[in-house]
Amino acid sequence: MTAAAREWEPAYARRAENMKASEIRELLKVLEQPDIISFAGGIPDPALFPAREAAAAYAEALVSEGNAATALQYSMSEGYQPLREWIADYMASRGVQASPENIVITAGSQQALDFLGKLLLTAGDTALVTAPTYLGALQAFAAYEPRYDTIRPEQTNRTPNSYSKAAVKAAPGARVKFAYTVPDFANPTGATLSRSARIALLDLARNLDIAVIEDTAYQALRFEGADIPPLQAIDLAMCGGLDKSRVIYLGTFSKTVAPGLRVGWICASRPLVRRLVLIKQASDLNMSAINQMVVHRLVAGGRHAELVTRARARYRAKRDAMLGALTAYMPTSVSWTRPEGGFFIWLTLPAGISGASLLTRAVDEARVAFVPGAAFFHDGSGENTIRLSYSLPDTSAIETGVRRLASLLR
Amino acid sequence: MTAAAREWEPAYARRAENMKASEIRELLKVLEQPDIISFAGGIPDPALFPAREAAAAYAEALVSEGNAATALQYSMSEGYQPLREWIADYMASRGVQASPENIVITAGSQQALDFLGKLLLTAGDTALVTAPTYLGALQAFAAYEPRYDTIRPEQTNRTPNSYSKAAVKAAPGARVKFAYTVPDFANPTGATLSRSARIALLDLARNLDIAVIEDTAYQALRFEGADIPPLQAIDLAMCGGLDKSRVIYLGTFSKTVAPGLRVGWICASRPLVRRLVLIKQASDLNMSAINQMVVHRLVAGGRHAELVTRARARYRAKRDAMLGALTAYMPTSVSWTRPEGGFFIWLTLPAGISGASLLTRAVDEARVAFVPGAAFFHDGSGENTIRLSYSLPDTSAIETGVRRLASLLR
Repeated sequence: MTAAAREWEPAYARRAENMKASEIRELLKVLEQPDIISFAGGIPDPALFPAREAAAAYAEALVSEGNAATALQYSMSEGYQPLREWIADYMASRGVQASPENIVITAGSQQALDFLGKLLLTAGDTALVTAPTYLGALQAFAAYEPRYDTIRPEQTNRTPNSYSKAAVKAAPGARVKFAYTVPDFANPTGATLSRSARIALLDLARNLDIAVIEDTAYQALRFEGADIPPLQAIDLAMCGGLDKSRVIYLGTFSKTVAPGLRVGWICASRPLVRRLVLIKQASDLNMSAINQMVVHRLVAGGRHAELVTRARARYRAKRDAMLGALTAYMPTSVSWTRPEGGFFIWLTLPAGISGASLLTRAVDEARVAFVPGAAFFHDGSGENTIRLSYSLPDTSAIETGVRRLASLLR
Repeated sequence: MTAAAREWEPAYARRAENMKASEIRELLKVLEQPDIISFAGGIPDPALFPAREAAAAYAEALVSEGNAATALQYSMSEGYQPLREWIADYMASRGVQASPENIVITAGSQQALDFLGKLLLTAGDTALVTAPTYLGALQAFAAYEPRYDTIRPEQTNRTPNSYSKAAVKAAPGARVKFAYTVPDFANPTGATLSRSARIALLDLARNLDIAVIEDTAYQALRFEGADIPPLQAIDLAMCGGLDKSRVIYLGTFSKTVAPGLRVGWICASRPLVRRLVLIKQASDLNMSAINQMVVHRLVAGGRHAELVTRARARYRAKRDAMLGALTAYMPTSVSWTRPEGGFFIWLTLPAGISGASLLTRAVDEARVAFVPGAAFFHDGSGENTIRLSYSLPDTSAIETGVRRLASLLR
């Protein structure tokens, strides 16, 4: 008997079979080596963190026993009311007339994805996703044992009937439950859905009578071009109000304020929010009160817009550095996206070159890390793609890293 | 068509049928009326919060750009390494030789309950619980659609065979997955499992080859009497080491430091912790880095023991006030528990008196709130029981509240 065999393990739930370690996560361990230039994780630049302002906000939250009695206590599962009010106003600025009762605060938008899987997916149900899509969404949904089917919002989607027939065929009694999309500067491709693609996706959802989960993690970080209205704004202009809308909007402060506070939100119809509040309560009771108070202080009074302006300028310079280096060094057999915002550029390598194999060589020979694109595909495709994130390294490291990476592809 | 009927709602997951609003939660709304004396929620006394020390710890975490770059950034899903190390040492002081790799940090122990439901329960599987048990555990597990069966650790449990037969009979292919217990100063009864009851529960679990979830939320708050070793310590003395143990230990800083930081932990065998880390990653990526750093500063260097000593003295005085008032004012037809620690006293009313009806009268006529005991029973019993928490009101309010409540029962 080996030592490992003598470890006791329980009988796990069936869903545990779906839970795999993330390639990105394994990669983050490589990043601890200081000479690696990392284009791997979508990690915000800490130079943008409002550290002094956060220190002042924490001090204010704890300045008196009265303040501390609220800041350090249990709190409402819905979230901190002034922050919900601020978010409702912010949603209005995005074309979504919302009240605080339409908002529930979550631990980043990752927790929102988990909650929506929990609320909507019975094992065998179908989730519609793009291929590629955000890896963390696939991981969050996996616990609820869905089947996936592929939407192509910029091309012509299949007929509604084709999606629902496939769902029932895969599991009797199962159905399509929602479509998930990252419409702006998507993780992983950097691509943005056109207005017409958004309308087409809403049409498909209306025909299937399903929800649309709109993940706006990077939306505020637009470097150029005009904002495209959120799917939720387009939908509620048609359906007449947020409580009648099928769109569930996920927002986060992780990319504009700081991820270490773990504060995001869901904006949706009131009946949905009421159920999500029950899920929040059962899952972890409530958010950290003090972190919500601090986020509120960091964004209120126009400060969110200031943070966004600063972040846009910094990430734009990094994107420009990466696009410039790609143009300067990559062979013509490699193509890439030109994002108008966000953190990511998506590279397509010549057919037959595997992103995963390239990563091994890149780390060993070029001291550069990135994420192989296949991780983002629910269907096992995307072998010859990779995702580069420009958010963390400085512009000079971006130039050096792309040059080194390109040398492996020449 | 009514306005409500025109709200759009998606087809929910089957599990959504199990998700109900908590009676405790509804009660918390009543508490906003300032003249109510509340024995309802198990809410820590904010006078115990280390507000000044927390302010200093937040300031330290943000004192330089370098510190802030870690405190406000994404972090490891396992949790903050110095805090995991501190917890491993703390576990050793409780008789559990643990390494940091046996620890995963969670958003309070509520999130631990959700994760364990997710890891262990397939729909139809059986969870063994006491009746009554912690309501929040029933809510967390509900999402995973278990069946419950009742253990009575202080009496003689049924035979292992009887539990497993009942599990299979209820759902073909299903099985008993774990036993859940709050061994010290239990929520809701205040009762503590004797050493022999702990050994009997471990025997049952060994015979059924299932996990034991040991929820120690109140354990540190012992007012008198000798500590009883945790089930995990008893088990690993028998099985030879934590990685071979079937006991999953849940700890929290909510009752000894402050609940608003939302920091707790799971201590378990390494294979289990590795899987729980994947669940953490998929559920909300990672804990707030800064809150973990602050908790670490608040407990390290012997400060946890100081906080515990202070909390014990304060809650002991409150328990004494409540026991004294119960003795002074309650009719002999009412009986109650005498907890050696924790937050709760459990009252049994004369048969035929409903705790729920008494609550309505208590709020209306006596301006006193509590939780009807039936909420804590998975099997719909406990009609004539109520839970009183003495943790939040001061001793004079406790005396007044019990007197007013007793007047309704005379």
